[in-house]
Amino acid sequence: MSIREILKAHPQPIPDDLDVRIRCIEACSECAAVCTSCADADLGESGLDELVRCIGLCLDCADMCDATRRIVTRLTESDVNVVRAAVEACLVTCRASREECERHAHHHEHCRICAEVCLRCEQACADLLGSLA
Amino acid sequence: MSIREILKAHPQPIPDDLDVRIRCIEACSECAAVCTSCADADLGESGLDELVRCIGLCLDCADMCDATRRIVTRLTESDVNVVRAAVEACLVTCRASREECERHAHHHEHCRICAEVCLRCEQACADLLGSLA
Amino acid sequence: MSIREILKAHPQPIPDDLDVRIRCIEACSECAAVCTSCADADLGESGLDELVRCIGLCLDCADMCDATRRIVTRLTESDVNVVRAAVEACLVTCRASREECERHAHHHEHCRICAEVCLRCEQACADLLGSLA
Amino acid sequence: MSIREILKAHPQPIPDDLDVRIRCIEACSECAAVCTSCADADLGESGLDELVRCIGLCLDCADMCDATRRIVTRLTESDVNVVRAAVEACLVTCRASREECERHAHHHEHCRICAEVCLRCEQACADLLGSLA
Repeated sequence: MSIREILKAHPQPIPDDLDVRIRCIEACSECAAVCTSCADADLGESGLDELVRCIGLCLDCADMCDATRRIVTRLTESDVNVVRAAVEACLVTCRASREECERHAHHHEHCRICAEVCLRCEQACADLLGSLA
Repeated sequence: MSIREILKAHPQPIPDDLDVRIRCIEACSECAAVCTSCADADLGESGLDELVRCIGLCLDCADMCDATRRIVTRLTESDVNVVRAAVEACLVTCRASREECERHAHHHEHCRICAEVCLRCEQACADLLGSLA
Repeated sequence: MSIREILKAHPQPIPDDLDVRIRCIEACSECAAVCTSCADADLGESGLDELVRCIGLCLDCADMCDATRRIVTRLTESDVNVVRAAVEACLVTCRASREECERHAHHHEHCRICAEVCLRCEQACADLLGSLA
Repeated sequence: MSIREILKAHPQPIPDDLDVRIRCIEACSECAAVCTSCADADLGESGLDELVRCIGLCLDCADMCDATRRIVTRLTESDVNVVRAAVEACLVTCRASREECERHAHHHEHCRICAEVCLRCEQACADLLGSLA
């Protein structure tokens, strides 16, 4: 995907953790898209009342993933405390969304997919936090 | 990518133009990420004064691509006029960003990549507009 | 509000339409916040099934208002075609959200408030489009 | 402002900390708008090279404030861990942006205004964190 290609063309010194950073950017990108779709799929289900918490948490997750993706992408004179705080918040948000989607995974395939994608994003965030330390 | 998988699990009738819609979602996703990175790479260049317009247009493009991606993703009781207006605005924004990046493509590899990705997003938007008509 | 104060401190020549631009920025800001809250209030109602379209359109409206507010705020070497396309899309999106909220305004006070705020944003967008012509 | 009005019309029990929550939503809204404008005003200055870090941090701050405002606005079955993580990240991001803007406040009025608005948002975030504990 082009995000790797463009980060390699960046004028600043390439950070040692470029690979782990790219995985975090791609995971946030995927998770934002999938959570937006899962909230929308919930709205199309009958038995909507039981999915209210799932919708809210998926909307939160899409918002935090989009903000975090942008912050992690910026390399020019970036602030490590800002990056760390965003990635930590993203991890917490993905976990909450994943745990709720798991509860519906047996009934709704979109929740099963979403839980899987949230878990991948949690792991990518944890890996980036490890490399920032 | 998982966006195709989750859209196929959507409870609403799958739209006839699903493939063209998925390409638009993926192109907006890629274009938002790449434009965020291009604006940031510009900030790391010497000769920054000539890149001011490029930064502004790439920021505009990232914002419009993210909004459009979300709107195009929502299938449940969506409004075709809203989808069309967003995709038209996205096409215009990608074109402006692409034309400016092309002016710097010979000097800056990140602008060359960004112009290419913007063009892909313009085409995906044009295709979706065609299928909405 | 501080957006007027900071735009007056902008190094670029102040545009003739500064007042109409500020009203559009403030209206988009208010509309994004209120639509986010209306979608969430819908999720807390019994009789949720009838509010599905309202939720989707309010989410679309919040996304488009946030993107448009950012694009209209940027004055440095901005592109009038990009601004116009965003404001046109914002107007269409606010109108769709307002028309749906009006249908629920007698039952839900949050929809009544939201419809009013969307209408204000439509008018602010229309005024800015007039001044861009 | 209408955000207070619409939150009072919310069907869920009004949280005890409604006032402190509203102040946080309004502060995030103002800070996102002002940071977007400060980054753009920086781009219009001569002596741009010294403002690169300011631009990046203001863009980060606008992104995190917009995401946090949306998350704090959602009251229906929301998750306190998600709210806390977002507000903590927002506080860190506003502080970084404020400290950088303070360095330029004597030369650039927009940085002085932005630093003031970021400080207000830090305080509103700290107050909400206190009430969530």
